Order: sequence, then structure tokens, then C-alpha cells
Amino acid sequence: MISYRKELIINLPKRRGFVNITPQVNNALKESNIKEGLLLCNAMHITASVFINDDESGLHQDFETWLEKLAPEKPYNIYHHNGYEDNADAHLKRQVMGREVIVAITNGNLDFGPWEQIFYGEFDGKRNKKILIKIIGE
Amino acid sequence: MISYRKELIINLPKRRGFVNITPQVNNALKESNIKEGLLLCNAMHITASVFINDDESGLHQDFETWLEKLAPEKPYNIYHHNGYEDNADAHLKRQVMGREVIVAITNGNLDFGPWEQIFYGEFDGKRNKKILIKIIGE
Amino acid sequence: MISYRKELIINLPKRRGFVNITPQVNNALKESNIKEGLLLCNAMHITASVFINDDESGLHQDFETWLEKLAPEKPYNIYHHNGYEDNADAHLKRQVMGREVIVAITNGNLDFGPWEQIFYGEFDGKRNKKILIKIIGE
Repeated sequence: MISYRKELIINLPKRRGFVNITPQVNNALKESNIKEGLLLCNAMHITASVFINDDESGLHQDFETWLEKLAPEKPYNIYHHNGYEDNADAHLKRQVMGREVIVAITNGNLDFGPWEQIFYGEFDGKRNKKILIKIIGE
Repeated sequence: MISYRKELIINLPKRRGFVNITPQVNNALKESNIKEGLLLCNAMHITASVFINDDESGLHQDFETWLEKLAPEKPYNIYHHNGYEDNADAHLKRQVMGREVIVAITNGNLDFGPWEQIFYGEFDGKRNKKILIKIIGE
Repeated sequence: MISYRKELIINLPKRRGFVNITPQVNNALKESNIKEGLLLCNAMHITASVFINDDESGLHQDFETWLEKLAPEKPYNIYHHNGYEDNADAHLKRQVMGREVIVAITNGNLDFGPWEQIFYGEFDGKRNKKILIKIIGE
């Protein structure tokens, strides 16, 4: 069994947004030289997500509107968490979108359907955040 | 380490529904001959889910009602994604229900609690959709 | 490849609550002697969750309020599932919070960001519930 680990760093210049990280994950897979196995990709911060969906800007606007409806940022004082912080909504949004994805590795490639792309979802940005890639296999 | 891969194909004759795929996943596990490891089962399409919950038809009606409340199908024009498409709601519903499950494999079996069953959740059906099963272990 | 399996048992004296199980998961990892690999931790019951977020009591109150808004416990008769049961809401809440987490194991440790902690989320308590830990690696 081989294992491989890499961290990505993202600094989004606004509070919320979605970044397609599929190219970086693919690069990590190539560096690992693993041909068969499982790849874990997770946000290392609890106000961010890694998820798989469509690379379509209209859909990303819909995600933003929808998450704001389900777990609005403001007013800040509706959340107990927001004593010294203002990011309770980010912790909730992250639960809807998820922390991590697991991708099958087959013949040295991400074993994806036709439209699957990996996204980093930031809900409390404007600072360095880390993403972990861990691959195990052969 | 052994790895095993299989695709399932599902064509649901309506837009939304839930299908218990535990028997097919179990068959794949038996074919793999893997006794200890991890099994990944994921929707290969981004308007569908694989998740674990209860095989109870009343609950499945509750999921349908609840998901329509959280992310309604119509009116189509409330979603930016629905320019050439009408399935923005399916992309949102899939985030609530999840893309994938990971199941422990122990003594050659799905290592499940008493009521755990694996479901495919379709949110934009009436066409062929693929599910991936990948198992690694020994 | 080594594999390791352990069950935790939790009996929460109320219907809903969150328990930090990171110490128990860490103990299991040390017992396994696995240094590189992947760790799966999942609820074995379908009215409970395992998830990663912040160990902050205000946030846990926010989760409770938010989940009750998204999928209220009462009135019981709004759910088809509640013929002989009263826990339909617990099945829905568990979908928002997720069934499982996968954690990278690096140098014999849980490979975590600065605030990541593993929680058991109970949505239908007052009885014994099981959590599965499965680790594979070397």
C-alpha cells in the first residue's frame, strides 16, 4: 500500500464563493503515482466544504441564494455562537454542503461521471484556509 | 491490496424516487472476494444521491415532501441554472442527501447496524444514470 | 494492509444532543497501531449522525434550533413515517448532518485542521446506540 498526502492553500478575497479544485486534485494524483485506490479530499476548516457538483456559474449563484435562505448570515445576533464571532452561518452552511469527498482511483485517474467536478466551498473567507488530499492504494 | 470496481445502471421512469440498491452492492462485494476493507458507493451524476437510511415507504414520502420544501422544483425560473435546463432543484436536493457512502467491510460483509440500507436517490430521472462501486482491501 | 474495527456505545439520556467522541476515536487509532491510512467513523443507526465541526456549546445550541426549523419534531402527524413511530424528524435531521466521516491517518495521528473535532449527533436518544470505527492502512 502506498499513501500520499498534500495540502492546498486557498485565500478567497470575499466571505463566500466556490472554487473548482479538480485540476489541483488531479495534479496530486499524478504525483502520488497511485493507480488503484481511494482519494480523500476534505476542508481542514470547519467553515468550509469540499463537494462534487456542476461547474456552472448559474448553479453557483443558486447555491449562494439557497444557502442564505437555509442559514442566513444576518442578523448575527440570532446565533448563540456569535458572541466573539460572526460566522455561525458558515458552520451551518458547511453541514449542508459537506466536509469531504471520497473519489475512486481507477487506472491512475479520478473515476468520475461525465460532469463531476470537485469544489471548495468557502463560507468565511478573506484568510488562508487549507484543504487536505490523502490517497491510499497501489 | 485488492481493488474491485463495478458500475450499476438505473433508469427511473419518473423524475424523482428512491431505490434500495443494497442487494446489488452486496452482490458486488461477494464478486470482489474482499473480506476486510472499505467500500465506496457514489452517484456518478450530479443530480442524484447515494445515501443510507431506512427502507420504509412512509419515510420516503416524507423525504420527497421535505426536499420539495427545502429546494422546490418549480417555478423553474427562480433558479439561474435553469436557462437551458430545468433541474437546478435536483442539484440542490442532491447536496442535502449526499453523493456517496463509505461502508466498512468486515468478514466479507457490509458492516451495518440493524436498519442500515443503501439507497439511490434520483432527482432528475427518466434516463440512464450510473452508480459506481469501488472496494479496496484484502 | 492492516484493518482494525471497534464499536462505541452511547446512551444519551435525552432525545437530542451532541457528544465529542474525538478522544475515543483517538484511542481506537492508537490501539490499531496504524500509521498511514483512512479511518471511517459512522453512526450504525439511521436516526443519528457522525460529523466534524466545532466544540463550542453556543454552536451546538444553534444546530439544535436550526435543525428543528428545517425538520421539526412536532406535530408528529405531519410525517407519513410516524404511524407506529415518532422519529421521522430524526431521519431527516440525520441527512443534513451526515452519517459518517472519513479522516486521513498520517504519522499515526488524526490528520486534522486546527479546530476539527468529531461529534456524535443523537436525534432519537434514550437508548443504546452504536458507532463504528474502521481503520485500514499500514
